[in-house]
Amino acid sequence: MCGCSYAQNNDEVFYQTSTINALLDEVYDGNITVKELKGYGDLGLGTYNNLDGEMIGLDGLFYQVKADGIAYAVDDSIKTPFAVVTFFESDKTIVLEKSVNYKQLEQYLDNVLPTRNIFYAFKIEGTFKYIKTRSVPWQDKPYPPLVEIVKDQPIFEFHDVNGTIVGSWFPGYMKGINVPGYHFHFITEDKKGGGHLLECQTGGVKIGIDYTSNSYLALPEDDEFYKAELSKENQDELKKVEK
Amino acid sequence: MCGCSYAQNNDEVFYQTSTINALLDEVYDGNITVKELKGYGDLGLGTYNNLDGEMIGLDGLFYQVKADGIAYAVDDSIKTPFAVVTFFESDKTIVLEKSVNYKQLEQYLDNVLPTRNIFYAFKIEGTFKYIKTRSVPWQDKPYPPLVEIVKDQPIFEFHDVNGTIVGSWFPGYMKGINVPGYHFHFITEDKKGGGHLLECQTGGVKIGIDYTSNSYLALPEDDEFYKAELSKENQDELKKVEK
Repeated sequence: MCGCSYAQNNDEVFYQTSTINALLDEVYDGNITVKELKGYGDLGLGTYNNLDGEMIGLDGLFYQVKADGIAYAVDDSIKTPFAVVTFFESDKTIVLEKSVNYKQLEQYLDNVLPTRNIFYAFKIEGTFKYIKTRSVPWQDKPYPPLVEIVKDQPIFEFHDVNGTIVGSWFPGYMKGINVPGYHFHFITEDKKGGGHLLECQTGGVKIGIDYTSNSYLALPEDDEFYKAELSKENQDELKKVEK
Repeated sequence: MCGCSYAQNNDEVFYQTSTINALLDEVYDGNITVKELKGYGDLGLGTYNNLDGEMIGLDGLFYQVKADGIAYAVDDSIKTPFAVVTFFESDKTIVLEKSVNYKQLEQYLDNVLPTRNIFYAFKIEGTFKYIKTRSVPWQDKPYPPLVEIVKDQPIFEFHDVNGTIVGSWFPGYMKGINVPGYHFHFITEDKKGGGHLLECQTGGVKIGIDYTSNSYLALPEDDEFYKAELSKENQDELKKVEK
C-alpha cells in the first residue's frame, strides 16, 4: 500500500529544494541529486553545487550551462543547492507569431495568466531572432556573495536560433522562497548552449503554460542552511542577481 | 505501484491549505475537508469555513472552539479555508517545571530551536495556572476583514487547568504564507474548551518539538482565492489579528 497523500497530482506540484534567499546567502551546496530531482519533475531550473552553471531541465533531461556557455548533459549524481521542477503538462498553449522582446513577452504573459496568486511553469519553444544569456562560474570556498559573482558573469548571445525557454512565475508572497515574477532559462534545440535568460527577441514560438497550485518546499538539513541569514529583505539584491 | 515521491517522510512535512494572507483578505471558505486534512497530519491548527471558530488538531482528532468558547469534536465533512497540519513526532522533548508566561515561553523556546530557518510543530501538555484564549465568530457574506472581526473577539479564561498547547513556528521568510514566529492554540484535557492562545502561565508542562524541514502548500483553485490581494505587506495587520 502506498502511504502517500501527495501522490494524486504530482504534475500539479512545483518541487523546490532550498530557497532563493539561501542562494543569496552563499548556500551553494546541496544534497539533492539530479536523480532525485527527476522523481519530482521533468522540467525546471536552478543551479548546481559550487554554483557551477545554470540548470535547465527539459523533457526529463537535465543540462548544465557552464561559464564557457556550453550546455552539458549532466550525470544523475550531480547535486544542486537550489532548483525548482515540475512534471510539465500545459494547461494553456498559445502560438505567438509576433516578435517580442523579454519585456514584451512578460507583458504578454501578464495578460494571459488567470491569477497572480498561484504558480506557473513555462515551456516556450520555437525560433528566436535573438537570445542573450548569462551563466555563473564554479566557486571555491569561502564563497563570495551571488551579487558579487554576477558582476563578472559571462554573457552569451545567439542569433536566429531554435530552442526552448524554460521558466517559472511565482507570486510576490513567495519572495524569500523563490524568484517573484518570471524566471527564465534557455537552451538551444541542439542542446549545445543556453543559460539564464537576460534578453530575447522571439521569432515564432509556441508557449505552454502549466498552472500549478501546489508547492513542495524541501529545506536542506545541514549546518550551512541552518546558519544562513534567510529572513532579511533583499529584493534589491535579488533584482541585481536575476536580471 | 505508488507513483508518489513525497511518501517517504510524511511526518516531516507541514501540509498547509491556502495562505495566511488569503485569510487576511477575507478568503474564509475552502474546499478541504477535515477528512482530507487527517491524511496529511494528526496535529495542527487553523480555522473553519465562515471563520467559524479555532481549529485544534491533536492526536488525530480535530476540534472546533466556537465563539461560545466550547470545543466541539468536528465531523469529517467540515471544511477549512486555512489550516496547517503534520504527523507529530517529537524530535526534542523537554520537561519545564518552572512557571512561565507566554512571552517567557517564547523566549525559552527561542533558546532551544536549533535554527531559525526551518519549521517547527509544538505539543505542550500539562498543567497551566492560567490560560487566556479567544475565538472568532461565524461570518456571513459579504465578509468583513479579519482585523475588524478580532476587535470584538470573545475572550475566555481558564485557571488551574490541564490541557495542551498545539503550535507552529515559521521563519520570517514564510510571512505571507503562514504566521511568522509562534502560533499557538489551546485545548483543555477534557476537550471541552480552548481557543487561540493569547496569554498563559504554565504549571509543569512537557514540551514536544517536531523539527520539520518540508512544507507542502496546497492553494485553493477557486475564484475567491484567485481574486484575493495576496502579495501586499501586512505584518502590522497580522500582529493585530494573531496577538
